[in-house]
Amino acid sequence: MKDINSLFMPKSVAVIGASNKPGKVGNMVMKNLRECRFNGNIYPINPKEEVIEGLRVFHSILDVPEDIDLVIISVPSGAVNESARQCAQKHVKTIIVLTAGFKEVGGEGAVLEKQLVEICQENNINLLGPNCLGVLDTHYPLNASFSQLMPDKGNIAFISQSGAMMVAILDWSKTEGIGFSKVISIGNMSDLSEIDLIKYLSEDDKTSVILCYLEGVTNGKEFMDVIKYASKKKPIIILKSGSSQAGAKAASSHTGALAGSDSAFDAAFGQTGVVRASTMQDLFDYGFAFSKCKLPKGKNVGVITNAGGGGVISADSIEKFGLNLAQLSDETKRILKETLPAESNTQNPVDVLGDASPERYRQALEIVSKDSNVDSLIVITCPTAAADPIGIGKEILKVKDIEKPIIVVNMGGVSFESINFELRENGLPTYVFPETAVKAMSYMTKYSEFKNSNNISCLENIENINYDKVKEIINNVYADGRKALLGSEAYAVVSAYGINAAPIILTHSDEEGANVAKDIGFPVVLKIASDKILHKTDIGGVRVNINNWDDAKWVYNEILDSAKRAYPDVVPNGIEVQKMLPAGQEIIVGMIRDSRFGPMIAFGMGGIYVNLIKDVCFKVAKNITDEDIEKQIKNTKAYTLLNGYRGSKPCNIEAVKDIIKRISKLTLDFEEIAELDINPIIAYENEAIAIDVKITLK
Amino acid sequence: MKDINSLFMPKSVAVIGASNKPGKVGNMVMKNLRECRFNGNIYPINPKEEVIEGLRVFHSILDVPEDIDLVIISVPSGAVNESARQCAQKHVKTIIVLTAGFKEVGGEGAVLEKQLVEICQENNINLLGPNCLGVLDTHYPLNASFSQLMPDKGNIAFISQSGAMMVAILDWSKTEGIGFSKVISIGNMSDLSEIDLIKYLSEDDKTSVILCYLEGVTNGKEFMDVIKYASKKKPIIILKSGSSQAGAKAASSHTGALAGSDSAFDAAFGQTGVVRASTMQDLFDYGFAFSKCKLPKGKNVGVITNAGGGGVISADSIEKFGLNLAQLSDETKRILKETLPAESNTQNPVDVLGDASPERYRQALEIVSKDSNVDSLIVITCPTAAADPIGIGKEILKVKDIEKPIIVVNMGGVSFESINFELRENGLPTYVFPETAVKAMSYMTKYSEFKNSNNISCLENIENINYDKVKEIINNVYADGRKALLGSEAYAVVSAYGINAAPIILTHSDEEGANVAKDIGFPVVLKIASDKILHKTDIGGVRVNINNWDDAKWVYNEILDSAKRAYPDVVPNGIEVQKMLPAGQEIIVGMIRDSRFGPMIAFGMGGIYVNLIKDVCFKVAKNITDEDIEKQIKNTKAYTLLNGYRGSKPCNIEAVKDIIKRISKLTLDFEEIAELDINPIIAYENEAIAIDVKITLK
Repeated sequence: MKDINSLFMPKSVAVIGASNKPGKVGNMVMKNLRECRFNGNIYPINPKEEVIEGLRVFHSILDVPEDIDLVIISVPSGAVNESARQCAQKHVKTIIVLTAGFKEVGGEGAVLEKQLVEICQENNINLLGPNCLGVLDTHYPLNASFSQLMPDKGNIAFISQSGAMMVAILDWSKTEGIGFSKVISIGNMSDLSEIDLIKYLSEDDKTSVILCYLEGVTNGKEFMDVIKYASKKKPIIILKSGSSQAGAKAASSHTGALAGSDSAFDAAFGQTGVVRASTMQDLFDYGFAFSKCKLPKGKNVGVITNAGGGGVISADSIEKFGLNLAQLSDETKRILKETLPAESNTQNPVDVLGDASPERYRQALEIVSKDSNVDSLIVITCPTAAADPIGIGKEILKVKDIEKPIIVVNMGGVSFESINFELRENGLPTYVFPETAVKAMSYMTKYSEFKNSNNISCLENIENINYDKVKEIINNVYADGRKALLGSEAYAVVSAYGINAAPIILTHSDEEGANVAKDIGFPVVLKIASDKILHKTDIGGVRVNINNWDDAKWVYNEILDSAKRAYPDVVPNGIEVQKMLPAGQEIIVGMIRDSRFGPMIAFGMGGIYVNLIKDVCFKVAKNITDEDIEKQIKNTKAYTLLNGYRGSKPCNIEAVKDIIKRISKLTLDFEEIAELDINPIIAYENEAIAIDVKITLK
Repeated sequence: MKDINSLFMPKSVAVIGASNKPGKVGNMVMKNLRECRFNGNIYPINPKEEVIEGLRVFHSILDVPEDIDLVIISVPSGAVNESARQCAQKHVKTIIVLTAGFKEVGGEGAVLEKQLVEICQENNINLLGPNCLGVLDTHYPLNASFSQLMPDKGNIAFISQSGAMMVAILDWSKTEGIGFSKVISIGNMSDLSEIDLIKYLSEDDKTSVILCYLEGVTNGKEFMDVIKYASKKKPIIILKSGSSQAGAKAASSHTGALAGSDSAFDAAFGQTGVVRASTMQDLFDYGFAFSKCKLPKGKNVGVITNAGGGGVISADSIEKFGLNLAQLSDETKRILKETLPAESNTQNPVDVLGDASPERYRQALEIVSKDSNVDSLIVITCPTAAADPIGIGKEILKVKDIEKPIIVVNMGGVSFESINFELRENGLPTYVFPETAVKAMSYMTKYSEFKNSNNISCLENIENINYDKVKEIINNVYADGRKALLGSEAYAVVSAYGINAAPIILTHSDEEGANVAKDIGFPVVLKIASDKILHKTDIGGVRVNINNWDDAKWVYNEILDSAKRAYPDVVPNGIEVQKMLPAGQEIIVGMIRDSRFGPMIAFGMGGIYVNLIKDVCFKVAKNITDEDIEKQIKNTKAYTLLNGYRGSKPCNIEAVKDIIKRISKLTLDFEEIAELDINPIIAYENEAIAIDVKITLK
């Protein structure tokens, strides 16, 4: 791991490009360093000035008598690399380049950035930026940025790929009373990336939740390797924008057409335990709850309210976000009945009535929280004429140390202002509306599940895999000047990786075809073999239900004739013979290669409507776990089919999982495979057999 | 329409149960009336007091010398009806009963409420409540409620079925700076309902948008009749909670199984132009925009931003919420290029750069707003180091009078506080995050579409309908002691309503069966006819692909034998003969009867996976329009199939629409029909034919 302590906790800081001119970045940074109560030495560097912000100026960083941990560079882009070289000479540990005009403008800027990175790498310097706003640490403290606002202290770390988004959030945090531990603008991420920073923050004592605004990831494979371990330590919540940008990729396979532009991120985030926020508001709504609450052990939510309406809305949301309204035990209900007025509702949501006293709230909360059927609690207060919002809040605080998370919903504004502050200060998140509370609780529950999962890749020690055989087939296809594998070749590839597939055998004469048909057993399908003949069915190139040797021989020649009529110039590779299988549940397993995360495995309903119904779930093959595959299957309607739909017997789902696992392994092992479709796989009670395998090489 | 002016604008008000005791409802109401600056006379009524809140007390309402428009009753539930009788004697126009303990507690309470309603109806008195908080009118002004908070003046009306929700919202509105025209707590709605109030508010000059929190509707059919006319006048936004409660209804038909617990509300709201909010926050986010903005003429949004991140997030949201990022004209782009700095992005979202001056913002906004490809505008400001948030806001205000809606997104908090206030005061809604702005814009766009639609029911003047024939069949089925129609009867019913259906003819001997088969043309299906034999296929009661007279006769007897073996005690009604039709696109049209809205028509993909794929859209039959049916079909994947999927020819969609229309008419005409399924209908290039019709009576 990169040592980036010097980025947040430098003993000394220099600013190359420090300035006396108000409004200039080099001046703002100096002011911020001065005003943030940073404890170390600050060295303004400027060849022309003598004093900046009351500090002695050095004309070059090389003149500074002390060692320097962190240098902030704010000089024109053309001069940045020379400054970086001086930093190298001075053995600086970390530099932040605020200057823009690098990769983001292309051309010369990109060249400059490449040189900058080389200088830093050669000299073992950490580089943040270029084109960034810098970093803030509220605890150390340090404001090494040109953001005018220093946020309040807190335990939320925020990483932003957009500088503007960072200042917006800091500005907003002041009115919302949200505190931060560290805030980092990562700019062009030419060296320090979101991955490095997440890794660092996952070990940071002052940070209990990591929030990110990202427009992409720097390295999908590293992301898959690193982030899930960071996620195990603390929650990472990411707002990834730009989902509408990708769109419109050429889709030559079923799987390609099924992949939404954002499927890869959804899958990668899900598999690494990242909580995905879909709006800026969500990012902070979740972050807020995660930063305060214990994690729930399960999905069962107990709700206490003084108004029916709040209970109804909570119940709706609990269903909507996949949680359960806890079933209170008989004992709990009995005690509630004894304790609360007769008209109270002692079913969950527990209605303590509009005239509930603070005392009654606390009692109800204590009773419900002790029920082992309850994993988490939401306490709702409406400012009814008889309610005492402040008193109720204070009684709720008395219960805050229980082992279950509590979220407070104070439905109103003016009546709750002071108590909301007190509740938040003391570790209880508060929201105005029940829906937000439930949504936050649902994400905490999901994260808690991830944290308790084992997450061991299931791709180690898979038996019955013949790497060399696949390599050989692929080489032969390339040698033949093709990219699309014949059915028989594709069959051979998946078979070599231990996948149960219906044999397709390439034959070269009518006698051979008929003999092979007899060997594998009737009925069979005969199919013209050629990567140059499209729409094989339409030209009479596919014939099904062939039941005996004579027919097979006869049909063999008919197919050849048909093909010749349609494609007079094509010499087919032969005729492929495949056994026909009885009906079963048709599913699809496929692979497309994502530019960031590598092979993405699709699973879903197969058959001719596959692209219409789009019942499919994607997972990233890298590090895939048994749990991932289990979730992938259960996430589709195909699962219902496999489980025995409308009286049919359940299929062998383990066999399906095995195919997904082996396809993951195959496509990770062979980067040459660009796309792969098995549509359909037919699943039966005892096995699952791949029927139609299509493989295209790069 | 009920005359409920006296509820909001009474000349005089009496309070029966007025009290001097602080904390009592009768005291709170008196205080509120006194403090709200209500201009008319206030008469406290109390048999024991002489002065309350400085006003002379009357011992009975009958003692008051003046006529009284509005009486607020806050006496124990047992005494309410006597008070109401006195109001009748006094010719009071409207009473508000705050007292609880009526229908909501059941038993004696329900009896009391029934009596109360009778008293009011007999004496032509409007009744609000019982079990409500009362009403507030900020303009008149009037606070005839026991809510302590008088909201700020505004043009949003709010109707709440939950009193607690109302106080929560009023409390919250104070911190959010949201103003109201009128606020009404409707309680048990035993007389004045949400429908009466919406109707009234739709004519109210002071109200430009109506917000409701409802847990149900009082009368679904009246809702369908009244609300769409009110919606034409001004937007109605409803948060309907309790969606998780309904659930688990017995589903004997496909259509029944397909209907979610909330489909009826979704359909009814959609067809009456109601904007459905899914959270409390949404309710007010939308309400806020609707209360300020002009309506967009189309879906094309122009975005102006000083930060790339804001643009990216907007673009994502615009796609997500079904709007379009406007394609700027070449002319617009040219003028933008001339006006803005070279590095600006002159594509939409237009990036005016982080250092954009207020002037530059205004220019960009003016240029983009003039483009006829742009229907609405979102202007985003990030508080970058170089930005002048206040100045930018002031320049945006100069453009506010254009004919297109503008929503301002000020991404931050402290920097925007004063300018947000100024923008809102001057008619421009502001939000913190782009997503909220886009979401609000999308609902305004949808509403605008509704407002411009013609909305004429398409069920008038349908030709080729034989009501008497259907009546006769239904009577015969009832007479036969059955509820399930035989296939031949169901065929006859839909045929009588002009639906093109494949004939099913009930035959009673093998010869008759074979003759009928010959008449309608081979191949045919033969099917045992009996409502007592379930799973007909499994017992050999259905035989397909019968190709000639001899086979038909032979199979006829085979079916009878099979049936007898499986059900020795059942005497079948005969054997039904139906022509087999060629393959086509299979769709389903069905009907379930909703307790509130009457017949709900389902349309979607047919076939055996219908319940798995759940590709279905519901509409309320009452008042259904051609546009509703068009939307219903387009809202499903079945539409893609009908349009010609994977090379198949497009089907006759008009024929499908005709079936939906006729099923709507049929099920509205015959309340006896409890459920109806046509699965499948086969759609072809020139026609659509109902194959399997199932009808169950009440």
